Amino acid sequence: MSEMGTAFDLVRELADGLPESAVVTEPAKTEQYSRDQARFCPVGEPVAVVRAGSTADVAHTLTVASRYRVPVVPQGAHTGLSGAANAVDGCIVLSVRSMDRILEINEEDQVAVVEPGILNVELSRAVAERGLFYPPDPGSWEISSIGGNVATNAGGMCCVKYGVTGDFVRGLEVVLADGTVIDTGRRTAKGVAGLDLTSLIVGSEGTLGVVTKVTLGLKPAPAPSRTMAATFPDARAGLAAVTAIMASGVSPSLMEFLDAAAVGAVNAYSKMGFEDGCALILAQSDGTDAVGDVVRMGRIARDFGAVDVAEAADDEESALLLEARRKLLPALEALGGIFTDDVAVPRSRMVEFLDGMVAIGEQHDVQVICAGHAGDGNVHPTVVFERGDDAAEARARLAFSDIMRLGLRLGGTITGEHGVGLLKAAELREELPERSLELQRRIKQLFDPLGIMNPGKMLS
Amino acid sequence: MSEMGTAFDLVRELADGLPESAVVTEPAKTEQYSRDQARFCPVGEPVAVVRAGSTADVAHTLTVASRYRVPVVPQGAHTGLSGAANAVDGCIVLSVRSMDRILEINEEDQVAVVEPGILNVELSRAVAERGLFYPPDPGSWEISSIGGNVATNAGGMCCVKYGVTGDFVRGLEVVLADGTVIDTGRRTAKGVAGLDLTSLIVGSEGTLGVVTKVTLGLKPAPAPSRTMAATFPDARAGLAAVTAIMASGVSPSLMEFLDAAAVGAVNAYSKMGFEDGCALILAQSDGTDAVGDVVRMGRIARDFGAVDVAEAADDEESALLLEARRKLLPALEALGGIFTDDVAVPRSRMVEFLDGMVAIGEQHDVQVICAGHAGDGNVHPTVVFERGDDAAEARARLAFSDIMRLGLRLGGTITGEHGVGLLKAAELREELPERSLELQRRIKQLFDPLGIMNPGKMLS
Repeated sequence: MSEMGTAFDLVRELADGLPESAVVTEPAKTEQYSRDQARFCPVGEPVAVVRAGSTADVAHTLTVASRYRVPVVPQGAHTGLSGAANAVDGCIVLSVRSMDRILEINEEDQVAVVEPGILNVELSRAVAERGLFYPPDPGSWEISSIGGNVATNAGGMCCVKYGVTGDFVRGLEVVLADGTVIDTGRRTAKGVAGLDLTSLIVGSEGTLGVVTKVTLGLKPAPAPSRTMAATFPDARAGLAAVTAIMASGVSPSLMEFLDAAAVGAVNAYSKMGFEDGCALILAQSDGTDAVGDVVRMGRIARDFGAVDVAEAADDEESALLLEARRKLLPALEALGGIFTDDVAVPRSRMVEFLDGMVAIGEQHDVQVICAGHAGDGNVHPTVVFERGDDAAEARARLAFSDIMRLGLRLGGTITGEHGVGLLKAAELREELPERSLELQRRIKQLFDPLGIMNPGKMLS
Repeated sequence: MSEMGTAFDLVRELADGLPESAVVTEPAKTEQYSRDQARFCPVGEPVAVVRAGSTADVAHTLTVASRYRVPVVPQGAHTGLSGAANAVDGCIVLSVRSMDRILEINEEDQVAVVEPGILNVELSRAVAERGLFYPPDPGSWEISSIGGNVATNAGGMCCVKYGVTGDFVRGLEVVLADGTVIDTGRRTAKGVAGLDLTSLIVGSEGTLGVVTKVTLGLKPAPAPSRTMAATFPDARAGLAAVTAIMASGVSPSLMEFLDAAAVGAVNAYSKMGFEDGCALILAQSDGTDAVGDVVRMGRIARDFGAVDVAEAADDEESALLLEARRKLLPALEALGGIFTDDVAVPRSRMVEFLDGMVAIGEQHDVQVICAGHAGDGNVHPTVVFERGDDAAEARARLAFSDIMRLGLRLGGTITGEHGVGLLKAAELREELPERSLELQRRIKQLFDPLGIMNPGKMLS
């Protein structure tokens, strides 16, 4: 049969078991589902997009895909930064974005059960209305889905106190490549019955199966948080203060760092008026003694040579200080084309990492501006280049890769929270020993013997 | 070749690649390694015990075992409660207890790298001397090894605030069944590069490989903790207070419950003088405002009808209150033979769970006394029976199983933190759906195609 004939049959069989208008094949429409927000990643042309409305829709799609041996690219809100949700040629893009119901919020058990398509912001607000708190707060929290957060094991600013998405995932419903549905994990706070399949699926970027239901542990709503901002004459002094705060027993709920160039960009963009040429530390506490914690952190900042320390007295002042961090991305975009990396290093190597990045920038004649989650050693170096200058963009790409390699040399990882996807699949082979990769490939094969689940991503 | 001849060759080949006296075959000596502390579990006779001193020793042992297709039972301090470390007939018991070095403690990175045989207490003290804190504190912390804690994903009293062992494991060195050595995970606080093999190994009870090195994340030493004890006229009122405290935004670092019978046993054993006939809640805070937190928790306890509330003003008073929990096990042992279970249920089902256990005790004519980690819904019901009375012991065993089934009916798990081992392998098949079990068995097969790693345990 001709290729086109096969595609016709495939689409017909898909449509036969799905609600009307679930299958989309018009290129103008499928194109909207063809990619996430990653740079530098190839984008293929899907045969069809399936907009699944239920677990049964997902199971049907995978059953048909298995029969035709057609690749399936699972997709949430496609806001990822590594290309894991990009279409590959001839694939079915399987969007679960419409599966966005909250199935349960239980205050007493501090548990929520949700479908994967719900946006992080929607879940966070819904549980907040019930006096609960879902901590994981990736930068994309207003636009990214919980399913995508699970698939990438997304982090955020709260991680430094609360951990990452996976730390809140207790159980999953997953549709495997052959269309069978499995339940993993538990509902209880603790449980050690059997191998931890849940953690294996979390962060697997759609390569092992499609998550169709998520059971999440929640926290009680914390006390109103208070913020401290401190400027330092250089990054070294600021990072020393970070280390001291992290060792102090105060458990900051946010601990961010902006280097002098980042502060300069924010100042230029928003007239925030931080000291020019200074590095900035932003820290927050949401503990029962948040006010005291901020005073403690401010004292440490001064001990480590802070030029200026601002301790927010109320919600409004706290929010104002955090604006510096929130305005960073638009401030950087105002400078030119940008690529933002996502390396994590042991905190003791941060100063070396920052120094090394300056050298990399000089070597490739681009600017590297650095900010990130200092408490976790998870930094987002941004390479800035002149928009429209192809040579500069190529140099920026080289700098981007060199930054990952520098992270690896310092005992770090190529990705703290954004994921591997297509963007970092080559560098993954530099990070992980071949034996470990081989074992991972065999696990992938066990889940997906035909190799149809998000092929070419992560373990390419 | 005769069986004995084969055993002779096996032992010779083992010894050939190991330091002198690493291989033990005298039955009087191997018998000391034949079992952990579980009740009701079969114990086999090992061909040999290998006392490994290094990763190379472990790799050699597994290589030889693979060649002879001889079962290997990995073992730490064999203090487990589920029989996972029990010898099976004809096996090699592979003890890593002598691999007990601390390879690194890094204050700035808040990381420790250790060998698996080190006792939890030794690690905890060593990091405390450096101003750091390793939270996981299973009841066995003074006698159990970190490797065993990793293999069972052990919990403890701190879990309610800090999480379980797995939450602190960042990376592992693991020797696979065929003798190859793999590294999993990372050293950094965050990282999402590749599938999470680390979490797959954690809690796998020696069925996938032998852990030979553990990289652990640490916390800064917390503020001195303060304790609150409150007695309630009944369990329902006490558990309602627990729920309110857990919802309050105070993050207790311990939240334990003892039912009236447990309180009675402690009173009889130690003259602690708690109100007779009352249930007891013990809570602790180690936050920067621990004193204030204890006042907050005490206020909640009174609001929920506490008969008596004691708020410890200092370390000494705090320690005294905690004695009630520490004395529970000897107090129960003073009553007769005991079996302690380990069910976790959603906290909203705890009252039903307690009521159901009373009924189970009546049905089987044994006493069920209940205490545990109320904040996590992880309860350790203890079945008490007359020592030496075989019929009573048999009835106690039935009650023990019925308690697990009750937990499952209430949406819980058969094991919150003790593990499956031999003891609960049958009940695991009641908890997990067959498809999930089948996938787990296939993962086990992938790691261990010859089926030599701790056969019959967990996924029997």
